[in-house]
Amino acid sequence: MADYQGEEVKLFGAWGSPFSSRVEIALKMKGVKYELIQEDTANKSPLLLKYNPVHKKIPVLLHNGKPIAESIVIIEYIDETWKSGTPILPQDPHDRAMARFWAKYLDDKLMPMWKAIRSTGEEQEQATKDTEEALKTLENELKGKKFFGGETIGLADITANFVGLWLGVLEEVCGIKIMTQEKYPRIHEWINGYVESGIMKRSLPTRSELLSLFQTYFKPTK
Amino acid sequence: MADYQGEEVKLFGAWGSPFSSRVEIALKMKGVKYELIQEDTANKSPLLLKYNPVHKKIPVLLHNGKPIAESIVIIEYIDETWKSGTPILPQDPHDRAMARFWAKYLDDKLMPMWKAIRSTGEEQEQATKDTEEALKTLENELKGKKFFGGETIGLADITANFVGLWLGVLEEVCGIKIMTQEKYPRIHEWINGYVESGIMKRSLPTRSELLSLFQTYFKPTK
Repeated sequence: MADYQGEEVKLFGAWGSPFSSRVEIALKMKGVKYELIQEDTANKSPLLLKYNPVHKKIPVLLHNGKPIAESIVIIEYIDETWKSGTPILPQDPHDRAMARFWAKYLDDKLMPMWKAIRSTGEEQEQATKDTEEALKTLENELKGKKFFGGETIGLADITANFVGLWLGVLEEVCGIKIMTQEKYPRIHEWINGYVESGIMKRSLPTRSELLSLFQTYFKPTK
Repeated sequence: MADYQGEEVKLFGAWGSPFSSRVEIALKMKGVKYELIQEDTANKSPLLLKYNPVHKKIPVLLHNGKPIAESIVIIEYIDETWKSGTPILPQDPHDRAMARFWAKYLDDKLMPMWKAIRSTGEEQEQATKDTEEALKTLENELKGKKFFGGETIGLADITANFVGLWLGVLEEVCGIKIMTQEKYPRIHEWINGYVESGIMKRSLPTRSELLSLFQTYFKPTK
């Protein structure tokens, strides 16, 4: 762990949130010590609202008093600020553009997953179709690659933590199967390499922790 | 105009598209010579589909045979690749994060504009409300600032070209007024400084050109 003496690094987040988790992965890749300030998303703290007045959402990174919001923006900030540990974006401008392209794709196109899992009827049907389309594109992109970043975990892989861990847990909790081994063998291979990597073992919550959390969240209320 | 001999820089775009225009602004800020390949969005070329198989959309920048898609990703690529001309992102990591935060905000939150202008009934009502909310946030952000980038035009300002020119044109064509001077005086001041700046005068289509284009697009068909 690199020693950045006198630095204040606080993360307003939640251990069960994939967006907050992305920032933790990046900080751990750089070996930056930080304090996780656990937010209750149903009852947000005055500090969170102060530091992210636009979106009022986690995650927010506070570095020496300066706040930064939006998970991908925070990850790029971390990569530019701390040169220790593992680089998150590659050096070559075209490779960097590809990493940003796929991070944006994942951030934009995988969100229907929530609806595919939680909604009903026509809305669920459309969301499932959109999610399958996105997974098909990702499956294709992983052809001949270990990670989205190539041989090593990069920006797009961090952004894909939702696919790497959360989606499978949500599928189990809700009794739905979208991401089958048969349709998406490369994504499954990627997931195996991902959750078994040293950085993800140090950064991600365990599957059983997440399972308990979402079983509580999604407990039928009727 | 910087001379990058032997470089091939092609932009698959459309002069009337704000997304394509963003890339032209960035290339002109850097003084990079390029060829604009005008795409017909109703009849996309095989080359566009080849170079952007994921989204099948303009803009795509082709630099020495390598394609890059997504306007903001392309702008960052341009800023990292060509060091000539005017820097687009600031040097300081926190300032860079702020530029990226606002570019993302503009890209995500201003899209309901299209619906606010083109839809009807409840859908239009909701889209107008969302657009006004976003404009209010931008109005607040411009307090004490000439541009989103501070004293100079930066990434967020380029992304905001839709607000700077397109929105007013669309309002006029459709006979709707959302962005009033009374509600958004700072945005109006920003627009004046924006369209009058040297770089925008060299980069943006003229108001009357856009007006003609959208009057044709939006001609009532019934």
